[in-house]
Amino acid sequence: MAVRFARRMNEIRASEIREILKLTQRPEVISFAGGLPAPETFPAAELAAVTAKLLSESGAQALQYSTTEGYPPLRRWIAAHMNETLATAVTADEVLVTSGSQQGLDLTGKIFLDEGDVVLCESPTYLGAINALRAYQPRFVEVPTDDDGMIPETLETILEREPRAAFIYVIPEFQNPTGRTWSLPRRQALLAAARRRQVPVVEDSPYAEIRYEGSPVPSVKSLDTEGLVVFLGTFSKVFCPGMRIGWTAAARPLLEKYVLAKQGADLQTSTLAQMQIARYLQDYDLGANIKRARAIYGARRAAMIRALEREMPAGVRFTRPAGGLFLWVELPAGVDARELLVACIEHDVAFVPGGSFFPNRGHENTMRLNFSIMPPERIDEGVRRLGAVLRDFVGRNEGAACRSAGAAAS
Amino acid sequence: MAVRFARRMNEIRASEIREILKLTQRPEVISFAGGLPAPETFPAAELAAVTAKLLSESGAQALQYSTTEGYPPLRRWIAAHMNETLATAVTADEVLVTSGSQQGLDLTGKIFLDEGDVVLCESPTYLGAINALRAYQPRFVEVPTDDDGMIPETLETILEREPRAAFIYVIPEFQNPTGRTWSLPRRQALLAAARRRQVPVVEDSPYAEIRYEGSPVPSVKSLDTEGLVVFLGTFSKVFCPGMRIGWTAAARPLLEKYVLAKQGADLQTSTLAQMQIARYLQDYDLGANIKRARAIYGARRAAMIRALEREMPAGVRFTRPAGGLFLWVELPAGVDARELLVACIEHDVAFVPGGSFFPNRGHENTMRLNFSIMPPERIDEGVRRLGAVLRDFVGRNEGAACRSAGAAAS
Repeated sequence: MAVRFARRMNEIRASEIREILKLTQRPEVISFAGGLPAPETFPAAELAAVTAKLLSESGAQALQYSTTEGYPPLRRWIAAHMNETLATAVTADEVLVTSGSQQGLDLTGKIFLDEGDVVLCESPTYLGAINALRAYQPRFVEVPTDDDGMIPETLETILEREPRAAFIYVIPEFQNPTGRTWSLPRRQALLAAARRRQVPVVEDSPYAEIRYEGSPVPSVKSLDTEGLVVFLGTFSKVFCPGMRIGWTAAARPLLEKYVLAKQGADLQTSTLAQMQIARYLQDYDLGANIKRARAIYGARRAAMIRALEREMPAGVRFTRPAGGLFLWVELPAGVDARELLVACIEHDVAFVPGGSFFPNRGHENTMRLNFSIMPPERIDEGVRRLGAVLRDFVGRNEGAACRSAGAAAS
Repeated sequence: MAVRFARRMNEIRASEIREILKLTQRPEVISFAGGLPAPETFPAAELAAVTAKLLSESGAQALQYSTTEGYPPLRRWIAAHMNETLATAVTADEVLVTSGSQQGLDLTGKIFLDEGDVVLCESPTYLGAINALRAYQPRFVEVPTDDDGMIPETLETILEREPRAAFIYVIPEFQNPTGRTWSLPRRQALLAAARRRQVPVVEDSPYAEIRYEGSPVPSVKSLDTEGLVVFLGTFSKVFCPGMRIGWTAAARPLLEKYVLAKQGADLQTSTLAQMQIARYLQDYDLGANIKRARAIYGARRAAMIRALEREMPAGVRFTRPAGGLFLWVELPAGVDARELLVACIEHDVAFVPGGSFFPNRGHENTMRLNFSIMPPERIDEGVRRLGAVLRDFVGRNEGAACRSAGAAAS
C-alpha cells in the first residue's frame, strides 16, 4: 500500500514513552505516571439513580440528536458555577459543551492556527495540548516560567519578535505537569501583554477546584475586560473523566467559531451524558463530592511530599503544589529520566519523564509524579523504590563520570 | 477585538439554511428537513436497566479514563457484526470507536488532507462530510453520479487529471441525500480505480441495516483486498444518535493514524457510553430493534412515496429509495428550492434545499426529504402542503416567465 498521508502526520507520532508505560499495567507496578482521578470520588450510585429517572421521564429527548452548543440547563449551570467559583461574568450562551476539555484544545488549534503560526506556552506545558495543537502545524515558543508563572518581560519580548503569535496557552492553577500556580500580578501582566497585541489567551483550568491550601487567585478569565480569554473547563477531575464532558467559555465572537468547528468535528457532545450530569447537579451536591475528593487527594499529596523529603538524594528538587494532581521533580543535571524510567520499571515503579512536556525538548533530568490515584501507603512504597533506584543510578552515573574523567585524564 | 483566525475559518461559515430552518422548530411545522431517527425505536428502558447493572458492578471502570482505541468488548462486537452483516473480514484491532461517525469524517480530513488536496465525492454528497472536510481546505471534485453510483469512466478520467486526489468519499447504501444505492459492478469499478492509483476509499455507511426491499449488495469494504477502504459505521440509526457512538474500521497502517489523530482530538470516546452499548448488545437483541425500526420507517417511506405520487405537479422527479431515511426530489428547472422553502415555511412545512449537498453549488432545483421522524398521517399532510405551495410557486414562475417573455417581445 502506497497511500499518502497529510504532512501533519509526520509530526503526530506514537509516543515512545507511551509504549514504555504500557509495561506498567501489571498490577504489581506502582505507577505515578497517569493522571487518573481516584474512582472513590466517582458518584456511581447517584449517576445510576439519575439515569433511571432521566430515561423513564425523557428517554426520547436524552437519546436523540441535540444542538451543537449543548444542553441548555447544563450550559446555564456551568455559567453560574464559573461566576460563583471563578468570579467571571459568563452567560450561558458563551458556553459550548465539549467532549472533554481536550476537545477544546483541538478546536482551539482548528480555529486559530495556520501552518507556521506560533503558540506561546509555559515551559513545560501540558502534553495533551502539545499533541492536540501539533496537528495544526504551529511552531511552539516556550515562554520562560518560574514558580509564579511566565516571566512578563520575556513574554513581551517574544510577542514583539513573533508577529505570527496566534494565542498564549496557560494552565494557571496547579499546572500540569509542574503543580505551580500563577500569582495575581503575573496574571495581570499576561493579560496586559495579550491586550496590547490582541492575542487571545487560552486558560486551561481542569484543577481549579482541587485546592488543598491557600486562597484562590482570581482566574485569568475573571480579569479579562475585552473578551480575549478562552476558558477551558471540565468535569473530569471533580465528577468523573469517563463521560468526557468539558466546556469552552468565551465571548460570542470567539465562541461562534468554536461552535462551527465543533459542528464539523462531531456534531455535538452526547445528549444523554449532558442530561445525566445536569440532572446530577440538580439532584445532588457536587460541592460535597469535591470536598471529599479534596480530602482524599490532600492526604495523598502530603504522603508523597513526606516520602520525597525522606527518600530523595541530595541535588533533587521538587514542587509542593497547593492543588491539582501532580508534582514536578528536577533531578541532578546529567540524570536522564528516560533511562531512569527503564530502570524503575524493573523495580515496579513508574512516572513520566519530564522531557515530554517541553514541546522543543531538552530538560531530560525532570519527571512528573501523579499522587491522586494511589493510597498513601502505596505512594510511600513507590517513592521508596524510586529513591533506591535513583540513588543507585546517581551513584553509577557519578562512578561513570569519575571513570570517564579518569580516562580523559589518563 | 481584532483577533486573527486561521484561514480555514473563512470556509467554515454558519449555514444560512440552518438559520432558516430554526424557524421550523414551532410544533405546527411539519419538517422533512432533519435526519432524525424516530424516538419510538430508542431502547430507553433497556438502557436504564444495563446502566444500573453497569454502574453497580463496574462503576469505577465505567467512569474512568480508558484507551483511545475503545472498549475491547465493543470493538470485538463491531468487528464480528460487520463480518456477519457486511461480509467483511475485520478484526477487533482494526476498529476504532469514535464520537459518532461524524468524528470519523473529521479524522479522515486530518489524516489525509493538506491544503489544496482533492476530495473526490458523489454529486450530491453528505453535507456533514463537506463541513467536516472543509476545515482541512481541500478542493472538492464532484464525480458525476447516476442511480447506480459514480460513472466509472469519468472517475478514471478525474483520477488521472488530479494527482493530488487524497481519497474518494462515498455513501454506497441509501445515500444521504439521494437515497440511491450503488450497484455491485460500480463498487468493483470504484475499487479497481482506487487500487490503480493507490487512493483510499472512505465508505460511509450509516444506513446499511435500514433496508426495506431487495437484497444487500456487498459492502465496498468486503471487496477490498489491499486495505485501501476505510469504513465509517455508527449506532446512531439502529440504536440511538444521542449517545454519539460510531466507529472507523481500517487496516492497521491506516487505523494507527486514526488512533493518533483521535488521541489529540478528544483522548477517547466516553467509557460509560461504550460500556452501556456493549452491555446492551450482550443482554438484548439489537436485531429485533432494527427489525422494528425497519417496519416503522418502511411504512413512512411508503406513505411519502404515495403522497408525492399524488401531490407533485408534472415535471417533478423523485427517488424511491430501497432503504435509509431520505428521498431526493428534482423540481422543474428554474424552480429555486431556497425560495420554495421560504414559501413553504409560511405554510408550516419544511425540507432542505438540495443545493447545500453539492460542495461546488448549483442544482438549486433539488430538495431532500426525510421520512423517518413523522407518522404517515403527518407525512401525508406535509406533502399535501408542499404540493400546494409548489403548484402555486410553479404557476407564478410560469406566469412571471410568460410576462417577462411578453415584456421582452414588446
